[in-house]
Amino acid sequence: MSTAETNPAGTTTDGADPRVLFMLDDPTQTGTDASTLASSVRRADPADPQISVLDLAVTRGDGIFETLDAIDGFGQALEPHLARLENSARLLDLPAPCLDLYREGIRQGIAASTHPRLSVKLVLTRGIEGAGRCTGWVFVDPEPDFTEARTHGLKVVTLDRGYRHDVAQTSPWLLQGAKTLSYAVNKSVYREAERRGADDVIFISSDGFVLEGPTSTAVLQFGRHLVTPSTDQGILAGTAQAAFFEYAEANGLTTEYRTVTPDELRAADSVWLASSVRQIVPVVEIDGVARGFDAELHAAALDYLVTRRS
Amino acid sequence: MSTAETNPAGTTTDGADPRVLFMLDDPTQTGTDASTLASSVRRADPADPQISVLDLAVTRGDGIFETLDAIDGFGQALEPHLARLENSARLLDLPAPCLDLYREGIRQGIAASTHPRLSVKLVLTRGIEGAGRCTGWVFVDPEPDFTEARTHGLKVVTLDRGYRHDVAQTSPWLLQGAKTLSYAVNKSVYREAERRGADDVIFISSDGFVLEGPTSTAVLQFGRHLVTPSTDQGILAGTAQAAFFEYAEANGLTTEYRTVTPDELRAADSVWLASSVRQIVPVVEIDGVARGFDAELHAAALDYLVTRRS
Repeated sequence: MSTAETNPAGTTTDGADPRVLFMLDDPTQTGTDASTLASSVRRADPADPQISVLDLAVTRGDGIFETLDAIDGFGQALEPHLARLENSARLLDLPAPCLDLYREGIRQGIAASTHPRLSVKLVLTRGIEGAGRCTGWVFVDPEPDFTEARTHGLKVVTLDRGYRHDVAQTSPWLLQGAKTLSYAVNKSVYREAERRGADDVIFISSDGFVLEGPTSTAVLQFGRHLVTPSTDQGILAGTAQAAFFEYAEANGLTTEYRTVTPDELRAADSVWLASSVRQIVPVVEIDGVARGFDAELHAAALDYLVTRRS
Repeated sequence: MSTAETNPAGTTTDGADPRVLFMLDDPTQTGTDASTLASSVRRADPADPQISVLDLAVTRGDGIFETLDAIDGFGQALEPHLARLENSARLLDLPAPCLDLYREGIRQGIAASTHPRLSVKLVLTRGIEGAGRCTGWVFVDPEPDFTEARTHGLKVVTLDRGYRHDVAQTSPWLLQGAKTLSYAVNKSVYREAERRGADDVIFISSDGFVLEGPTSTAVLQFGRHLVTPSTDQGILAGTAQAAFFEYAEANGLTTEYRTVTPDELRAADSVWLASSVRQIVPVVEIDGVARGFDAELHAAALDYLVTRRS
């Protein structure tokens, strides 16, 4: 793989579009062999329109997605991401995605890119209303440079998520815990953060528990102990957070999944936002109050995360 | 206009696609003259892909829509729908839609159809991330036949919406009260209703107030008095409900906007779901309990609603 640079216009210095799109024909197909899978993956130009205005992704945000990081051709936490895609499909009563087809699309997508670090997005939509066939694709994009956020950290605001922490149990039709395409709120809260002079958001449940970020998992440090909000609260199981915990446990720290209060968030020695492509970024301000973080642990864990082959 | 029949495959008996799509170039343009507007409306084939996989409508459900009814070329409640589109844009920090361009698209869309009764959908998305230009279109479709639901009514279940009734005031970033493309929950609750043997849903706030249906406004009758939940509860101002109230007031009934409890919903003499294309449908069962409705008022109001030129 070359190390072609990406400029802000989204083209490489040699003028080629660095983005790679593979559409997946019938992405919930079953019982297919290798040749059928290979022929179900169709390269397409991301600059061209590919989706009907009647696709339920467009009209209702009715679909699911995953984003993972690929480094030198290796997709990090590929199987946990595929498992989460499958779980989101189940929560939305979508047919199960053909994981072998997604694996094939990811393989071809990564192979087609000339960049060493990629974000890989997997999408499954309910398709055109009434057509009875889902729409799916794999989109591969050179990863942005997160050096600034990883080094100097992010200012975060806490915002009400509106839901109780137990809403996934009481009201599963609200789809909390699924990674859906209905993410307008997850965009809206970034605009609210910007209005408040911050970079990112941590959601608080309406009954006062720390949940997650719009695109990340919160990890708190208390001495040699790491804590993250438990996933029975309608939040996603973080793949980067899981890898962070693996690193921590291998290095003598203890880890825990439980409910967390905003007071604990403010009192923690360190707070990180963990996500697949950004990996971990330290939080240096919460709701206008500056705070520190364990720079030594951060640097070591980040080094592990960005280079991991798992 | 002809009265060509539509068969289940979505084609007319003469084989032509009865659906009409007009894409709007730069749908938030300002200060344009009539010829610019006319040239910004481009007919497209709804069977062809028109939308990029990078459009924020697809990736985040980040956009807004409206659906109105057109009868013999007349768009019912056109200006209230455009006002609501403009309000949704404001709630999502989208640029203001060019309403003259949408009016032109609606005019051309209705004129291009051969059907006497149409549903007309207006969409505005945030466009491709980073491109700085919104995507917009007008989609016109022959209206389904609602005779069965209008005559015999619907079975409804009440479902928790998860949010408090005051969430639009306390947490505007949750976008309650905007008609967004992030409607996966509004689809999910229909599947939950079906599992419970029902046809439709009325949302209840987490603190126990009647809100609205996923695609409709609830109207309750107590004698000669009609009540609907007030729109300061993060719900949409219903255009069909407003027309129903106009009819009621012109015929000696009184009307009121206020908070409504589930007990009142169950105790009402009639309950209707009001929406733009279906108009009003009576509720004949709530959470498994059969209930009646004022058939005389229903028939008269429905006749007014389906033929109104306002």
